[in-house]
Amino acid sequence: MPTLVIANKCYSSWSLRPWLLMKQLGVTFDEITIPLDLPDTKAQVLKHSPAGKVPILIDGDVTVWESIAIMEYVGDAFGAPVWPDDRKARAMARSIAAEMHAGFSALRSACPMNLGKKFARKDRSEAVARDVARFSEIVRQSRERFGAGGLFLFGAFSAADAMYAPLVTRLDTYSIALDATTQAYVDAILSLPAFQEWRAAAMTEEWVVTADEIDEEAIENYRRAA
Amino acid sequence: MPTLVIANKCYSSWSLRPWLLMKQLGVTFDEITIPLDLPDTKAQVLKHSPAGKVPILIDGDVTVWESIAIMEYVGDAFGAPVWPDDRKARAMARSIAAEMHAGFSALRSACPMNLGKKFARKDRSEAVARDVARFSEIVRQSRERFGAGGLFLFGAFSAADAMYAPLVTRLDTYSIALDATTQAYVDAILSLPAFQEWRAAAMTEEWVVTADEIDEEAIENYRRAA
Ligand SMILES: N[C@@H](CCC(=O)N[C@@H](CS)C(=O)NCC(=O)O)C(=O)O
Ligand SMILES: N[C@@H](CCC(=O)N[C@@H](CS)C(=O)NCC(=O)O)C(=O)O
Repeated sequence: MPTLVIANKCYSSWSLRPWLLMKQLGVTFDEITIPLDLPDTKAQVLKHSPAGKVPILIDGDVTVWESIAIMEYVGDAFGAPVWPDDRKARAMARSIAAEMHAGFSALRSACPMNLGKKFARKDRSEAVARDVARFSEIVRQSRERFGAGGLFLFGAFSAADAMYAPLVTRLDTYSIALDATTQAYVDAILSLPAFQEWRAAAMTEEWVVTADEIDEEAIENYRRAA
Repeated sequence: MPTLVIANKCYSSWSLRPWLLMKQLGVTFDEITIPLDLPDTKAQVLKHSPAGKVPILIDGDVTVWESIAIMEYVGDAFGAPVWPDDRKARAMARSIAAEMHAGFSALRSACPMNLGKKFARKDRSEAVARDVARFSEIVRQSRERFGAGGLFLFGAFSAADAMYAPLVTRLDTYSIALDATTQAYVDAILSLPAFQEWRAAAMTEEWVVTADEIDEEAIENYRRAA
């Protein structure tokens, strides 16, 4: 059984991606958690991967790092249906997954993933608004072209959905206004049993990562500890 | 025949990646060039892809964007040997390719790709030095574990080499000090006929992208125009 090395479920957006994909596709795995931002975090991570970041998948003597490479490996090594079957859908799924992997920096830095809280709706910045608009366009175009037969971007759940899942949580956490198609998609992701399992585990964590707590009063605080 | 939409060969690091891979693997394609940083650059790019960035691959009614997704498509649709055959090598190749796709930001911003010039060696910053050290580690580990039988990271040329090719040009352009293994690898990439074809075309371009010209006197200026 492979082992997935991840960080705090409350804050680690990159960890959520392959975790959710594997759960959702029924690929079983063990977990190791390395909490972020502690004095020995880096040393702990470097024990598993020379790149020094989580997530990391360890499968026997194979070590895979980077969320997107882990997802490809899950398809490659375990035969899981990571990408859509249709070649055109797959091309678009990989394009938008890669766009997430290197993009959306305004939304990511202004609105860190934080499952423990909810913040009031407010204007964040034009750059954030552009990222949200681009995400809505992705949802609309994927669902229009390839979404028939399911609730997800390409119908059935795929790596593209897993890549955007942390962004989806931010839209919820920061109460960002959305059109109906995007909101329905956000609701579908947040209702996934696998996501709810992740969130429930996050709620029991006691670590607080100051860098991911924005300087605003929350309107909800879901964690006992924080 | 597919069409690859790219930007200026002198400066567009992302364009170089799939272009070099396809040339090197013998996948033929047409080219469209959209010069960067002109008043209508964004509008021209948006005609081809809603993500608004190059490179873009157009294959009939399929549009693929993001360098890494284009590379996967080239394997998927044209059967080209984009990744190493061996599953373990492939896992590492995809990990380091993804690491490049979202990383090395210090080196990328301090030392923009600029094939037209050469700059004197000088200390850039600690963050740049860390990126260079990480690249050297990647070269050493890939070549030690999987490099037998060829000059490249995994022996034969693969998408991993194509992903790092623009970084390799920066090491040369900014005269960065390297260990012998890394230098030999850099020389192998820069000697590729396909890379030399790209560079020769870059030399004939007349566009100057100010944002990619650092504020330093060059020790060589290879372009007639600039
Ligand atoms: N591009 C990487 C990003 C991974 C990443 O940034 N992970 C964060 C946690 S969410 C991390 O490991 N931070 C710890 C550190 O950089 O020391 C991926 O796709 O996996
Ligand atoms: N992550 C993208 C990066 C693409 C990118 O940043 N391309 C630049 C040119 S090298 C671009 O299109 N810039 C024009 C713009 O952003 O308007 C990829 O892998 O393809």
